[in-house]
Amino acid sequence: MLRGHLTAAMAFAAMLAASSARAEEPITLRAMGSFHVGGRLVELTGKPVKEMALTPGGVPARFDPNGTYQVEQMYVQYFLPAREVGTVPILFWHGGGMTGVNFETTPDGREGWLNMFVRKGWGVYVSDAVERGRASWAQYPDIFKGEPLFLTTSNPFTRFRIGDGPDSYDPDPARRRLLPGSQFPNDGYENFVKQIVPRWTTTDDATLAAYLAEIDRVCPCVILFHSQAGQFGFKAAQARPGKVKALVAVEPAGVGDPAKVDALKGIPTLMIYGDFIAEDARWPKIRASGVAFAEAIRGAGGHVDVVDLPAIGIKGNSHMMMMDRNNAEVAGVIEAWLAKNGLTRAP
Amino acid sequence: MLRGHLTAAMAFAAMLAASSARAEEPITLRAMGSFHVGGRLVELTGKPVKEMALTPGGVPARFDPNGTYQVEQMYVQYFLPAREVGTVPILFWHGGGMTGVNFETTPDGREGWLNMFVRKGWGVYVSDAVERGRASWAQYPDIFKGEPLFLTTSNPFTRFRIGDGPDSYDPDPARRRLLPGSQFPNDGYENFVKQIVPRWTTTDDATLAAYLAEIDRVCPCVILFHSQAGQFGFKAAQARPGKVKALVAVEPAGVGDPAKVDALKGIPTLMIYGDFIAEDARWPKIRASGVAFAEAIRGAGGHVDVVDLPAIGIKGNSHMMMMDRNNAEVAGVIEAWLAKNGLTRAP
Repeated sequence: MLRGHLTAAMAFAAMLAASSARAEEPITLRAMGSFHVGGRLVELTGKPVKEMALTPGGVPARFDPNGTYQVEQMYVQYFLPAREVGTVPILFWHGGGMTGVNFETTPDGREGWLNMFVRKGWGVYVSDAVERGRASWAQYPDIFKGEPLFLTTSNPFTRFRIGDGPDSYDPDPARRRLLPGSQFPNDGYENFVKQIVPRWTTTDDATLAAYLAEIDRVCPCVILFHSQAGQFGFKAAQARPGKVKALVAVEPAGVGDPAKVDALKGIPTLMIYGDFIAEDARWPKIRASGVAFAEAIRGAGGHVDVVDLPAIGIKGNSHMMMMDRNNAEVAGVIEAWLAKNGLTRAP
Repeated sequence: MLRGHLTAAMAFAAMLAASSARAEEPITLRAMGSFHVGGRLVELTGKPVKEMALTPGGVPARFDPNGTYQVEQMYVQYFLPAREVGTVPILFWHGGGMTGVNFETTPDGREGWLNMFVRKGWGVYVSDAVERGRASWAQYPDIFKGEPLFLTTSNPFTRFRIGDGPDSYDPDPARRRLLPGSQFPNDGYENFVKQIVPRWTTTDDATLAAYLAEIDRVCPCVILFHSQAGQFGFKAAQARPGKVKALVAVEPAGVGDPAKVDALKGIPTLMIYGDFIAEDARWPKIRASGVAFAEAIRGAGGHVDVVDLPAIGIKGNSHMMMMDRNNAEVAGVIEAWLAKNGLTRAP
């Protein structure tokens, strides 16, 4: 189901674009670095003081757990190419239980979207949202409410539309039942699982607040967001419409505030979905929610392209399309869309 | 206290070297990327199944906590310069409650040792050890034993030899009592605190195992390790002596196995200490333990240079010397030592 001005010719252009910057060429950066942003201070009181050695045989140190804690900040790492092609940088926001690692080297060792976009001349900001990765997490239940959720190795295999049915996972890659034509790098699945981090379901407000702090520091920008970050990407754009020049929603699992779609009418938006959605237990409903939100934005006078990759001839994509074997081709679709929307200049 | 062949002239050469690669020049990489390595699978049984929506208003999914978990892996990010000067790459191992972020941009926004070493032509592997950052962590007490330790914002201020005495910290940077001549970027202290992650005291074996997996994948190499990683750096080199070409122990808080110093005799080693040690409550004992280990290595026929920065005219360094204001000068000392030990080639 292809909407807006995206055409098969554009998909072909995307494929060509995807192959034009080669992994063998050096990457030249005018800057790279990282920072933490956002967060707040929380005071804890009434807890016993401990004396403990942190290293076996080490010198004991005194730890008074009462006091002020820095919590709910996020981590951002940036790579700015020497020759910038994007008119603004692009922010990559990962999904739930994930970190920015999603966008780096793929689990089977190929380049990820970070390298691909930087090679094309995009300044890229990859982040770890509140509660995970290098953003750190806060003690619960004192500060974070509720317990974190841990995923078994097999859990994402069907939920992310890699395996064909609930019992399709097997520890032996050769014995897994993949969806037909799956582009997920099955041999790298164990490495993918190593990327997964614990997830709370109670930190959404803090996560959005930190993302707004990132926007205030870095933007104007494009925001590319995945899965759980659907709600954060749309809500952040609703809160900072003047700073967000385009949105790329990669299989958003949540959407923005329906009462504020008006704020999004000036922000060109791409929604992109992979394969195997119709047959899935949950994804038809998740996609329908995204498409309904797109319709609401259009109703307010906005512009949203909803791209189902199979409809433009790109088949087999899982929920983790940034690491699928054809990730360069999918990146090419996004890059072509950004160019079409005036977000690139001549290199 | 200057030992071995390090001289004041060498410190001067280091200072010159530190200023020769400028932050304004582009960084050209032949490759950059990341991977996870190591870890093991753990089976959990007998826990209740949950049905939960992960996103507000989202479609509920089934979470069966019984099953197999991937735990105790570590995260590694690498930057390989187009023109390599190091004969082998260098691995940066952070200290306790820290992540690889320590070596990136400093808390006050200057370049860290990662950029500095890459600019000088070193391939650099920056990692997050088991339990922290992008390495993820495992549920406790089921898998990790014991609870994690969280640091208050003020805790590291004196423990890392930044503040002058136990009550020297104040939320207002202007009202903090710094050690005289401190090189720590006081105005960036809040940003430094945002880098800190929870710390277990029960994961040392798993941490070492993952570091060995990193060595087996990446080395031959130099390993530069800080603080808590003192024990990991020396023990890893004792376990893989043929793969480790040099060790740089930055204020090691622990050491290797005294019964296996023989394994270290062929590995040139630099131990480097900052300022304010004699007056500190804990650091004289920590330093003495490092120096005694150095003597034991020498007794086995090995070569260790112990450098106290103040003794070569570099004053004011905290425990976090990689982010102190004179971090380029300290990097220069290390780079000059590596060159002197034959680990560089003409660029």
